[in-house]
Amino acid sequence: MNAPTTLAHLTPQISPRDVPEAFLEALKARFGAQCSTAMVVREQHGRDESAFTTVPPPAAVVFAESTQDVADAVKLCAQHRVPVIPFGVGSSLEGHLLAVQGGISIDLSRMNRVLAINPEDLTVTVQAGVTRKQLNEEIKSTGLFFPIDPGADATLGGMSATRASGTNAVRYGTMRENVLALEVVTAQGEVVRTGTRAKKSSAGYDLTRLYVGSEGTLGVITEVTLRIYPLPEAISAAICSFPSIAEAVQTVIQVIQLGVPIARVELLDANTVRMVNQYAKLGLREEAMLLMEFHGSPASVKEQAETVQALASDNGGEAFEWATTPEERTRLWTARHNAYFAAIQSRPGCRAISTDTCVPISKLADCLLESAAEADASGITYFLVGHVGDGNFHFGYLIDPNNAQEFATAETLNQQLVARALRLGGTCTGEHGIGLHKMDFLVNEAGEGAVGLMRTIKHALDPHNLMNPGKIFRW
Amino acid sequence: MNAPTTLAHLTPQISPRDVPEAFLEALKARFGAQCSTAMVVREQHGRDESAFTTVPPPAAVVFAESTQDVADAVKLCAQHRVPVIPFGVGSSLEGHLLAVQGGISIDLSRMNRVLAINPEDLTVTVQAGVTRKQLNEEIKSTGLFFPIDPGADATLGGMSATRASGTNAVRYGTMRENVLALEVVTAQGEVVRTGTRAKKSSAGYDLTRLYVGSEGTLGVITEVTLRIYPLPEAISAAICSFPSIAEAVQTVIQVIQLGVPIARVELLDANTVRMVNQYAKLGLREEAMLLMEFHGSPASVKEQAETVQALASDNGGEAFEWATTPEERTRLWTARHNAYFAAIQSRPGCRAISTDTCVPISKLADCLLESAAEADASGITYFLVGHVGDGNFHFGYLIDPNNAQEFATAETLNQQLVARALRLGGTCTGEHGIGLHKMDFLVNEAGEGAVGLMRTIKHALDPHNLMNPGKIFRW
Repeated sequence: MNAPTTLAHLTPQISPRDVPEAFLEALKARFGAQCSTAMVVREQHGRDESAFTTVPPPAAVVFAESTQDVADAVKLCAQHRVPVIPFGVGSSLEGHLLAVQGGISIDLSRMNRVLAINPEDLTVTVQAGVTRKQLNEEIKSTGLFFPIDPGADATLGGMSATRASGTNAVRYGTMRENVLALEVVTAQGEVVRTGTRAKKSSAGYDLTRLYVGSEGTLGVITEVTLRIYPLPEAISAAICSFPSIAEAVQTVIQVIQLGVPIARVELLDANTVRMVNQYAKLGLREEAMLLMEFHGSPASVKEQAETVQALASDNGGEAFEWATTPEERTRLWTARHNAYFAAIQSRPGCRAISTDTCVPISKLADCLLESAAEADASGITYFLVGHVGDGNFHFGYLIDPNNAQEFATAETLNQQLVARALRLGGTCTGEHGIGLHKMDFLVNEAGEGAVGLMRTIKHALDPHNLMNPGKIFRW
Repeated sequence: MNAPTTLAHLTPQISPRDVPEAFLEALKARFGAQCSTAMVVREQHGRDESAFTTVPPPAAVVFAESTQDVADAVKLCAQHRVPVIPFGVGSSLEGHLLAVQGGISIDLSRMNRVLAINPEDLTVTVQAGVTRKQLNEEIKSTGLFFPIDPGADATLGGMSATRASGTNAVRYGTMRENVLALEVVTAQGEVVRTGTRAKKSSAGYDLTRLYVGSEGTLGVITEVTLRIYPLPEAISAAICSFPSIAEAVQTVIQVIQLGVPIARVELLDANTVRMVNQYAKLGLREEAMLLMEFHGSPASVKEQAETVQALASDNGGEAFEWATTPEERTRLWTARHNAYFAAIQSRPGCRAISTDTCVPISKLADCLLESAAEADASGITYFLVGHVGDGNFHFGYLIDPNNAQEFATAETLNQQLVARALRLGGTCTGEHGIGLHKMDFLVNEAGEGAVGLMRTIKHALDPHNLMNPGKIFRW
């Protein structure tokens, strides 16, 4: 492993470039009130949900209202060699929004129009600033929904840029599978469309999927065409407790291997259930717990649920609770939805450093149990949640941001976890992205050769390193 | 539309480069009997299933037996600036294998080992020369299968390179969705791995999906890690006849819009059924016909089948036949499997020029019916089959390859069809790739901007234009 067990690894390399006065003047002339250099606005756009807090904010924020605005801003930046950081709602967990090399933030939240709903094709086209909840609200009357749910009410542009997924991915896939087409503004400020609304295509390089997950480093995503799905005829949710996470994980592995089309299956460990009980007064059994959801026709949902309940029981699962009405389902899922806030609140003033490994399902038990034992032995406080149907889980190490020792302990645990996941054929990040923090992990995972290919593509498409520089890999 | 209605469009631009004698000597020294310059071998590797027949063959063929062989051959080519064309079984339909700029063919068919079967993770890793039927044979005992079926028994390397799909894609997706990871030899002869066996990842640029569909122009795929699926507990097949293709297509649209997880749904027009009847003595009703397959639990298959039969009946569907045993299912599908050969044989000496448009499902009826009317009016003979659940269909214009007028008529029809598909938000190629024939279509579809991005990537990763040059776009 290249990653050193030092705090240096968590301290981003900051090398702000000059932002020429002439550039700021040109920006203000073009954008007027849509451009702000107020410190409060800049600071708001210079941070995210990551543990990084010490990076100076961008020099200005442009509130784009159209693709033309984005193109014009990027062209000005290209002309003056100023970095560009796209901003949605600021929910990145990996420092994507931090201006480590200076430059400006382009805020896309005003580009929030749903441009086309094609219910008969199960597609929708949105501006990049539309959030997933807004989209689901706007298409509700069609009987369709967009399933990807990363927790935060992120923008669909941001979710595309980080290749996000979340609780529904086990059935519906990730942004990789659900973005059909994009409009992007390139590093040169050109507006380009990738993909079509056709369900499949062999027409040239898959630019859509190159931009999905590119973390703003190849251009700014301005429009997204997505797959949407018929709301299931029937939905059933269930929770179930297990003697330990081993039995819970074993149940999930068997469910997946049997090919049960489960829509969600989430894990909470006993300690996280305890935190949630305190936070939301839930009275759940303080044991490892699976939360599940089944989508389909009434008959299919019943069949899935019976199969899963049988498997769970064989593995010592108890205290089943079932729910079919929306209200009851929401109640059952309260524990999962509150896990992060419950954890943060369990230790006032703390920050969570979130891990994001994902392994082949057969390795899930090994990876999870060894890593949990390691975390327990370290004495660190943590919460543990997982999109276990995909082999993806998150430890959230709850650290005092002013305590270097805790930072270092969390970092060591994360490194050991990533090394383990890579040995088991997995990835260092299932859904959060590389950002600032995981650059060394990416090299360990993909190898210098593959990272070299990525860098060659970046150099070719963004020769002056202006698009979200300092993220994914070093220039 | 840029594409001119002339035969020039169908005549590939041939500009063979010098293959230095010193290179051929070095190649023979390294590869001995694994390298052939015999004309019969070269000719075998210089053609495919496309309508192009006039391109001189490659200068030599290397039969690679390992990734190292591929890397060494590519390095020699890089050193001497000799083009490289990867070859699987030669089933390309778009001229991918033709040595339009000279160079050598690297035959991967001896790299035919299944390297790892991970039934518990539903993944398999194969050398690029393994064919899909071989794979399914080798994993049969695990109760799992690989669903992508493009018709030909293509290699999995070749299917990856063209982003192939076929009859099962409506349920299981295409190679885009089913390739998890690759090993590739870059234009510099370096061996690089993309992706992992984890089900999802946000680790950097999606190189896997960049190589999937790159048609050999960015490197040679040497290993493929694929998703596999549990063999369905129950499979049911059905055929159904309709008064015209309009009603058949309407049925499919409704099935998809209802979210029925149908596994296959194929269309044959009345004339194609007639050809198949003559070829295979089937006695089918000579009407437009849908062939369908349902996968799932017994209850789910029954439910799907009932829903679809009701929709079909509402649309005038008749002469339903159902089958559940493998033998009966095979019999029902005979018509589809024989369509191509039946058509070719219906006109001795002819070649089929296959179209490959794919449109959003709501536009399928418009696109298909207008194009069929156009083809009927032209007097050309054709067959018509479609993976209609994806909005993808193929006209096969049956032309006398020595008749320039027929060539031109077919080309005009194809151009009109592609223009129509693009107007309707579709793509010029659902699964065959761009190859030699569709370069102008790609520009019309994606725009100069997007093709410019593709070209920039190509120039960066293959600066001497050695990897399958002259395909997808002009240098």
